[in-house]
Amino acid sequence: MIHTEDLRVNWIDTDASGRIHYTAALRYFEVAEHGLMRKLFDGGGDPSSRSFGLPRVHVEADYAAALTYPDEFACSARVTAVGRTSVTYGFEARRRSNGEVCLTGKIVAVAVGPDGASMPLPPEFRDVLERASEV
Amino acid sequence: MIHTEDLRVNWIDTDASGRIHYTAALRYFEVAEHGLMRKLFDGGGDPSSRSFGLPRVHVEADYAAALTYPDEFACSARVTAVGRTSVTYGFEARRRSNGEVCLTGKIVAVAVGPDGASMPLPPEFRDVLERASEV
Amino acid sequence: MIHTEDLRVNWIDTDASGRIHYTAALRYFEVAEHGLMRKLFDGGGDPSSRSFGLPRVHVEADYAAALTYPDEFACSARVTAVGRTSVTYGFEARRRSNGEVCLTGKIVAVAVGPDGASMPLPPEFRDVLERASEV
Amino acid sequence: MIHTEDLRVNWIDTDASGRIHYTAALRYFEVAEHGLMRKLFDGGGDPSSRSFGLPRVHVEADYAAALTYPDEFACSARVTAVGRTSVTYGFEARRRSNGEVCLTGKIVAVAVGPDGASMPLPPEFRDVLERASEV
Repeated sequence: MIHTEDLRVNWIDTDASGRIHYTAALRYFEVAEHGLMRKLFDGGGDPSSRSFGLPRVHVEADYAAALTYPDEFACSARVTAVGRTSVTYGFEARRRSNGEVCLTGKIVAVAVGPDGASMPLPPEFRDVLERASEV
Repeated sequence: MIHTEDLRVNWIDTDASGRIHYTAALRYFEVAEHGLMRKLFDGGGDPSSRSFGLPRVHVEADYAAALTYPDEFACSARVTAVGRTSVTYGFEARRRSNGEVCLTGKIVAVAVGPDGASMPLPPEFRDVLERASEV
Repeated sequence: MIHTEDLRVNWIDTDASGRIHYTAALRYFEVAEHGLMRKLFDGGGDPSSRSFGLPRVHVEADYAAALTYPDEFACSARVTAVGRTSVTYGFEARRRSNGEVCLTGKIVAVAVGPDGASMPLPPEFRDVLERASEV
Repeated sequence: MIHTEDLRVNWIDTDASGRIHYTAALRYFEVAEHGLMRKLFDGGGDPSSRSFGLPRVHVEADYAAALTYPDEFACSARVTAVGRTSVTYGFEARRRSNGEVCLTGKIVAVAVGPDGASMPLPPEFRDVLERASEV
């Protein structure tokens, strides 16, 4: 299951090179990830509504082609792996005008309890993620 | 009493115009404001350590001259007015190389209780701000 | 003429207070302003495609009610005044769920030539803005 | 050769989780990288002063421990590898109070010519990076 957001490069996303600043990619990934979570869970897009934390522990981004203002692009997110305590998301951003893949990425998040220690993903939460990763 | 932070334009602060993005000014003001609060209060720079909220209700910024990467500048903050429920800060950013005033600004923050309604500034908190506004 | 963008509070827009960071308001205003400019001008939304600069010289924002993740809201922009060298935009953000006005704001931008000095708005550019301010 | 910047978590770096937003790590890395480049090159910290571009093509970050406002930390950058067309930087952020490594990261940047195609690093530029990677 893939969730896609239709986004546009905003002026604030650029830097003096004329391209997007490299942190913009991670903003786009997050918008797609949260859209995916809202689709999978009732209220699941709101991290503060969960009984456990799900902080990112690893992130990667590859910049294949430059996005510039005011490019329109599709940013997709999907669940690529579910572990005992972690979930991995995969991302891709394609420019609308020519279908070119401009960004790809990966985020790993780990469930943590109120004490900040990692904990197993709650079974019902994990089940939803696993089903999402299979379709 | 004026608190000054020595700052530099970071690459991320720029946009495709080659100058800083206009939101960067507000980031600089906040750094100076928080530095001032840390100087005035034990732990006062940490909004989450207070028993009341102090959200901004009004902000203004004037852009007198362009800051560009990697300009060094001094950003100062001071308390300019203290009301029953509010505090007003004033800001100024001067480029190091020539002393030019590049940014000025103003932020008004209002004390709010746990219910989100505005409330009088706690007397001891207000006293410190008033003394700071007089020197 | 009013241009409205349907936006959502993104996670990155929040800070440790649980509300949006105050700079998020200015990001929202810019998205609405650029949407308005794209509607008014062919390619006008792209600042780098113009023969003159239009940097902001003054910005104001008022925070009437807290936006929190994942609020949906409508952010509108319109031209409120056109001067010899400047244009003033007005902004408003209303929460979708209850129509509450959460943010209002104002941005003044000034035309500048390649030398960085202010210059009169080009007549054809100014005409479009004036017509937009009247409807 | 390692360049270290003394930084502080700013309020804007946080999100509603109470920790830093994951993009803040990449802002810190960039500050350290640019500080390193200013040390290595006359004016080298200014990407717009170079005759070639050096966009990032890959970035990774690992979040080992949570940074929260107003933590002070040391963020270091060094050159870890120099290729024909690319340079790789390594990063680490350690909390001042306890020396704990909170963030590690890696950025790969590639030289590109005015046409946007990758090109060999100019020899004198590459030499400086190679010497920096050896000490």
